[in-house]
Amino acid sequence: MEKFDQAPEIAKLGHVALISADIEKSLWFFKEIVGLEETTEVDGVHYLRAWGDFEHHTMSITAGSESRIDHIAWKAKRREDVDNFAILLKDAGVEVELVKDGTETGQGDAIRFQLPSEHNFEIYFDMEKPVPDLHRRAVLKNQTYKAWAKGISPRRIDHVNIATNIDSKIVTDFLAEKLGFKMREYLVDPSDKQISGWMSVTQLVHDIAVMSIPDAETSHQLHHFSYWLDNSQDVLRAADILSEQGLEFVGPGKHGISQAMYVYVQDPGSGVRLELFSNGYLIFEPDWEPVKWKFDEMAVGFTYWGEQSGTSGKKELMLNAGPVRETQGIE
Amino acid sequence: MEKFDQAPEIAKLGHVALISADIEKSLWFFKEIVGLEETTEVDGVHYLRAWGDFEHHTMSITAGSESRIDHIAWKAKRREDVDNFAILLKDAGVEVELVKDGTETGQGDAIRFQLPSEHNFEIYFDMEKPVPDLHRRAVLKNQTYKAWAKGISPRRIDHVNIATNIDSKIVTDFLAEKLGFKMREYLVDPSDKQISGWMSVTQLVHDIAVMSIPDAETSHQLHHFSYWLDNSQDVLRAADILSEQGLEFVGPGKHGISQAMYVYVQDPGSGVRLELFSNGYLIFEPDWEPVKWKFDEMAVGFTYWGEQSGTSGKKELMLNAGPVRETQGIE
Amino acid sequence: MEKFDQAPEIAKLGHVALISADIEKSLWFFKEIVGLEETTEVDGVHYLRAWGDFEHHTMSITAGSESRIDHIAWKAKRREDVDNFAILLKDAGVEVELVKDGTETGQGDAIRFQLPSEHNFEIYFDMEKPVPDLHRRAVLKNQTYKAWAKGISPRRIDHVNIATNIDSKIVTDFLAEKLGFKMREYLVDPSDKQISGWMSVTQLVHDIAVMSIPDAETSHQLHHFSYWLDNSQDVLRAADILSEQGLEFVGPGKHGISQAMYVYVQDPGSGVRLELFSNGYLIFEPDWEPVKWKFDEMAVGFTYWGEQSGTSGKKELMLNAGPVRETQGIE
Amino acid sequence: MEKFDQAPEIAKLGHVALISADIEKSLWFFKEIVGLEETTEVDGVHYLRAWGDFEHHTMSITAGSESRIDHIAWKAKRREDVDNFAILLKDAGVEVELVKDGTETGQGDAIRFQLPSEHNFEIYFDMEKPVPDLHRRAVLKNQTYKAWAKGISPRRIDHVNIATNIDSKIVTDFLAEKLGFKMREYLVDPSDKQISGWMSVTQLVHDIAVMSIPDAETSHQLHHFSYWLDNSQDVLRAADILSEQGLEFVGPGKHGISQAMYVYVQDPGSGVRLELFSNGYLIFEPDWEPVKWKFDEMAVGFTYWGEQSGTSGKKELMLNAGPVRETQGIE
Repeated sequence: MEKFDQAPEIAKLGHVALISADIEKSLWFFKEIVGLEETTEVDGVHYLRAWGDFEHHTMSITAGSESRIDHIAWKAKRREDVDNFAILLKDAGVEVELVKDGTETGQGDAIRFQLPSEHNFEIYFDMEKPVPDLHRRAVLKNQTYKAWAKGISPRRIDHVNIATNIDSKIVTDFLAEKLGFKMREYLVDPSDKQISGWMSVTQLVHDIAVMSIPDAETSHQLHHFSYWLDNSQDVLRAADILSEQGLEFVGPGKHGISQAMYVYVQDPGSGVRLELFSNGYLIFEPDWEPVKWKFDEMAVGFTYWGEQSGTSGKKELMLNAGPVRETQGIE
Repeated sequence: MEKFDQAPEIAKLGHVALISADIEKSLWFFKEIVGLEETTEVDGVHYLRAWGDFEHHTMSITAGSESRIDHIAWKAKRREDVDNFAILLKDAGVEVELVKDGTETGQGDAIRFQLPSEHNFEIYFDMEKPVPDLHRRAVLKNQTYKAWAKGISPRRIDHVNIATNIDSKIVTDFLAEKLGFKMREYLVDPSDKQISGWMSVTQLVHDIAVMSIPDAETSHQLHHFSYWLDNSQDVLRAADILSEQGLEFVGPGKHGISQAMYVYVQDPGSGVRLELFSNGYLIFEPDWEPVKWKFDEMAVGFTYWGEQSGTSGKKELMLNAGPVRETQGIE
Repeated sequence: MEKFDQAPEIAKLGHVALISADIEKSLWFFKEIVGLEETTEVDGVHYLRAWGDFEHHTMSITAGSESRIDHIAWKAKRREDVDNFAILLKDAGVEVELVKDGTETGQGDAIRFQLPSEHNFEIYFDMEKPVPDLHRRAVLKNQTYKAWAKGISPRRIDHVNIATNIDSKIVTDFLAEKLGFKMREYLVDPSDKQISGWMSVTQLVHDIAVMSIPDAETSHQLHHFSYWLDNSQDVLRAADILSEQGLEFVGPGKHGISQAMYVYVQDPGSGVRLELFSNGYLIFEPDWEPVKWKFDEMAVGFTYWGEQSGTSGKKELMLNAGPVRETQGIE
Repeated sequence: MEKFDQAPEIAKLGHVALISADIEKSLWFFKEIVGLEETTEVDGVHYLRAWGDFEHHTMSITAGSESRIDHIAWKAKRREDVDNFAILLKDAGVEVELVKDGTETGQGDAIRFQLPSEHNFEIYFDMEKPVPDLHRRAVLKNQTYKAWAKGISPRRIDHVNIATNIDSKIVTDFLAEKLGFKMREYLVDPSDKQISGWMSVTQLVHDIAVMSIPDAETSHQLHHFSYWLDNSQDVLRAADILSEQGLEFVGPGKHGISQAMYVYVQDPGSGVRLELFSNGYLIFEPDWEPVKWKFDEMAVGFTYWGEQSGTSGKKELMLNAGPVRETQGIE
């Protein structure tokens, strides 16, 4: 990294770009039931964000013949980091596409590339922070929208959880070495080999988790992505709202890993799994030692109490989050 | 800063060292009512931390003839940052004392110095992370103690709020330029001059706030320090617990600035003001624009709703957090 | 009471009939912000109820030149109690009007009369319990509507609080002797004379409170009426929602009397005061001794903690809840 | 019932008398973990109550060779109802024992008898309401103890749930006809025969539930008894506390029937099952129609969401709550 005055860094999870095979249902789910706000719709791409998100969008939904994740986007720490990441990744033999300013509404120049697992990643820096119309604008100057307008009403995007049928260590090493993610907690199998890792560039326990699921259909799946609620009771309210809509879910429960409350529900339009998430802890320690969960501690790691989450026996539907992209406007 | 490979950085608020004129009452308040754990007591210094704090202590209490704050300590990001901060501060004309490994139990080599306002600061890196006895140890590997053992039972230390009768800008400029704190929100007077600033090195809205209070007794007061609760309901439970002990408090309420719930209560032993704090937002944006609160927005900034906090008319008791130190073991 | 096989009894608070000088604003407030459901609108009368109310309406709103309370209605325990109350009240010299089946939509034969303070009361037994349309109907068989559709979303009506400039004892004696309300808690002045009483026929601490306010404009005011929320955090959420609408309110706080959490807000259409209410205790004891609050305990009785409620110095706007009625269809 | 001026009535659930084979463990569980207060200990009987219970005890624990429920006690509405119930029950062919004033500490004259299922019931009226020592006494005049002293800290006793291997209808008919319990909700099998019934004399959905469990060991088992928490978040806190003590539990979840949140845990001393319970609805309607749950709605009735409760496949341990009594002091 001697090429750069300062090694490029990721600042935060930006957004998840979802392709839905039933966009009407997906929009109903994310706008009416989850309660995300639609910043704008341009050429069939619906840009959404939560009431406390500051940037233009934290997810987008586009109609497609097959439901999948087009890409997962990360905000760089500095504008020049976008280019510097491009250099760094190409040097490492990674193919990098440039995504021009405006290809995604609200977003400046960005790059796209794939993890060793072929998960599609995007890195951007510039993103508009549009102010809502007066009637939806928050009273507080440090808040975007009025809260509690509809449905579950989470505050902000929280994290992504990706699954792969290859060795998770290959993925987490890449995330650590190329993108600067720090391992916060991890799970090993009986032979002490890493199964899953929870990593972050922020003080959250994880901005991303990587799970080895040997019988996953591809190396590049999305297990779920997550929005944050301020209070554990809000997760119970989410359970009520989902039940009243006849939407099945897993939880509520509390993870051992991250100490967070959860409910998991699948968008009936695309099948993508969403985690409603609250509580948990933050990591401020610069000398944090990754917490190691042994195989026989896995059950408590996934579910400290409540309805079981994690790799139960049955096969879980996951969306493809890799290849198949012909991005417009890419050079 | 060209002297260093990397400029030294602060990672987090470490602890607040309290001198109490009535240590029995202070220990009762912080251990029985607030519910902090005592890591150890050495030579009359009681080292306390919350159940979710990882390091050896996040506050200490020592008996003294007059209640005051001995120092406010910050953890550096790297071990070498302690020395580098010493160099950087001396170059800026700041007097720096070395505090040897073990002067504070559990803590490695550290430095002490004063802000332009004469608030006593300490910077350390090494700090033990002792594991509690089995019966108090948490079940979860990522948690220190079992929660909810006694009283209010906050998770962790959160922030400090210092007051000064000099221009707050002198203090916040020092914090920004020498110590790397970023301004997150600030308040101005009718002539657009800064009154108060909320700053952080973490993703919290503030690790430290600096308030100009012209009629404060000295330039170096502590307005309050704060512990964090996971849920807003926990703040209401704190209100019940304090009421049942006949301890007066301000709140519950919700700040506009930081969006956090609060209750303020004074330790009956030392008079130090403690804020029980929950909810609020995090700042992940590297391109955050400090939120400016105009003078006529101050009321909402301090109290969005609930019992009023902030600079009400009446004079508030604050502890001295500057000079008067003859640290043992200082070279 | 030897006339009856069984003395007539009140079962519960039924509804509050509000006349609003600005019905558009009142409908916006109660339907969009409070989140009540409109069962139906007939001849300009809007019949509302909360998602967990079982009967046809728990409040109604009608346009009028002056905002006032037309009547407060109570459900009798048995159908024959309506007639028996008529007999009992007439015997006591109280003028009783008959209100025919259907005069109020959904309601059977009822009677209206005035308290000694001239507050307008109604007693009914038969009331439809309409099932909502499928898309709004709850999933659970013991719940009326889906919850959390809009705004604050309380579960059910809770109580009324009436004010009078005459001796409150005259009113509470009438409520006890004629209508069977039991005194649960009461407040006395320095000479031990009753100022206010909290009374119930249910296991709630109060279905009705009566407050002496010497400088009230009439003997028959409504201080407020109240809807119930299941959790104290819901009261905090209500505070957020009201703040975001620019609606001023008092609270949140916790009453000593009843131990309940509160927020008070006035309907911007009619000025009627609404209390959002949660927690508190229930009285199952048949041998309950009314709790007496002395004058110097009044502050704690009204506000155990939080933003002060109760008789503060300043004069509070209250609606007239007496006379001026020319009920259609009354014999 | 023409014998009485007024038919005798039950006012509320009074207490559950537990015999524990490991009293040390049971006392640890109920006092330290659940957080009940010990009113007094007399001749080896430990009398406990929650901080918001008003009467002398809502449960007792006595050492015994086999863990069982000695009796379930109910408070009558009037003093004369105790004798009148004795007359009424004897007339119905039920054997009635008199339990003299003071046999149970704090309790006046009472009677004991068995349901058709041989569950041991007690009816009393007089019960002391002792005021706690000053340091434990609540600040509020309408509350018994300071809350939140230890552990889960429920407010009050809530209900009992009894199981039988005979037809539940025989039991619920007896409860309705002899003791005045009203059916609130009930569950039927595919042939429309009642399996379980939830009944109350109060406005709670149930003071008692009766469940047919064909393979129960006896006709007179206790499935669980329950204490009430004010907020749903308190149930989550209970889950944390139980997990930290290594105590297994079922939940958290939400019942369809009663709409209440739950966690079930067994006392490690006696094996008795305790439900921590919150939220739910109240029934004020005198013309309430019992809610009927069909067999295919049973799953939702028991568990609306969360970790499953109710009759799962596996056999649940239950305590015997019948016969085997040689009450001292019985005439």
